[in-house]
Amino acid sequence: MLGRLNHVAIAVPDLAVAIANYRDNLGASVSAPQKEPEHGVTVAFVELANTKIEFLEPLGDESPIAAFMERNPQGGIHHICYEVDDIFAARDHLKAQGARVLGSGEPKIGAHGKPVLFLHPKDFLGTLVELEQA
Amino acid sequence: MLGRLNHVAIAVPDLAVAIANYRDNLGASVSAPQKEPEHGVTVAFVELANTKIEFLEPLGDESPIAAFMERNPQGGIHHICYEVDDIFAARDHLKAQGARVLGSGEPKIGAHGKPVLFLHPKDFLGTLVELEQA
Repeated sequence: MLGRLNHVAIAVPDLAVAIANYRDNLGASVSAPQKEPEHGVTVAFVELANTKIEFLEPLGDESPIAAFMERNPQGGIHHICYEVDDIFAARDHLKAQGARVLGSGEPKIGAHGKPVLFLHPKDFLGTLVELEQA
Repeated sequence: MLGRLNHVAIAVPDLAVAIANYRDNLGASVSAPQKEPEHGVTVAFVELANTKIEFLEPLGDESPIAAFMERNPQGGIHHICYEVDDIFAARDHLKAQGARVLGSGEPKIGAHGKPVLFLHPKDFLGTLVELEQA
């Protein structure tokens, strides 16, 4: 059921600094910042040949990445996102296996306009895993 | 200069548990474990459609991931690896930009038999970055 690696998300304290870092040091192509107030982040994407890196900067007072930034003030990898063909089938299979789906367990519309779920890091090798409908 | 995302490396305390986790919960295809005594790790690869996830389990008394496992006993994302066309040109450019290349600054042969360099996490948004000759 595991499809493509959709993205790796890196939470950063300052998006402009992060964009300049990847552009100037690594010669990367990075998109313009885009505010996502309903998700509490401003995002920018590093476009790679086979996948992308998603920079996340906290936005607003209730950003879901605020606690992560407090623990990792200079930034760090926040989650990895895999595509799945059928997010409801994936959810049901994971629950049957005893894996914890975060929140209500119902897919929500993510930052890319597609249904997503987040899985508990303690059930997945200490990494926060996002599943996105392909 | 930044090419494909070659892999995302997840350090794990128990490779057999990690392989079963991804195979049974996520329906992933995972390679058989392979000991790399010269690199102090046992590795296994999750084969995705566009890239791979590299599981790393400490091997031997001087594993380079031992300190990371002490800080992250349940595992966690250890590094991300980007491909570059010319690792010497990349190294020289990074040094000129003031970014720190770990170790001697000379590329070493990595776990995949290709020259690699590691870059200081403090210079790259809190993430350990590996560059691999494409």
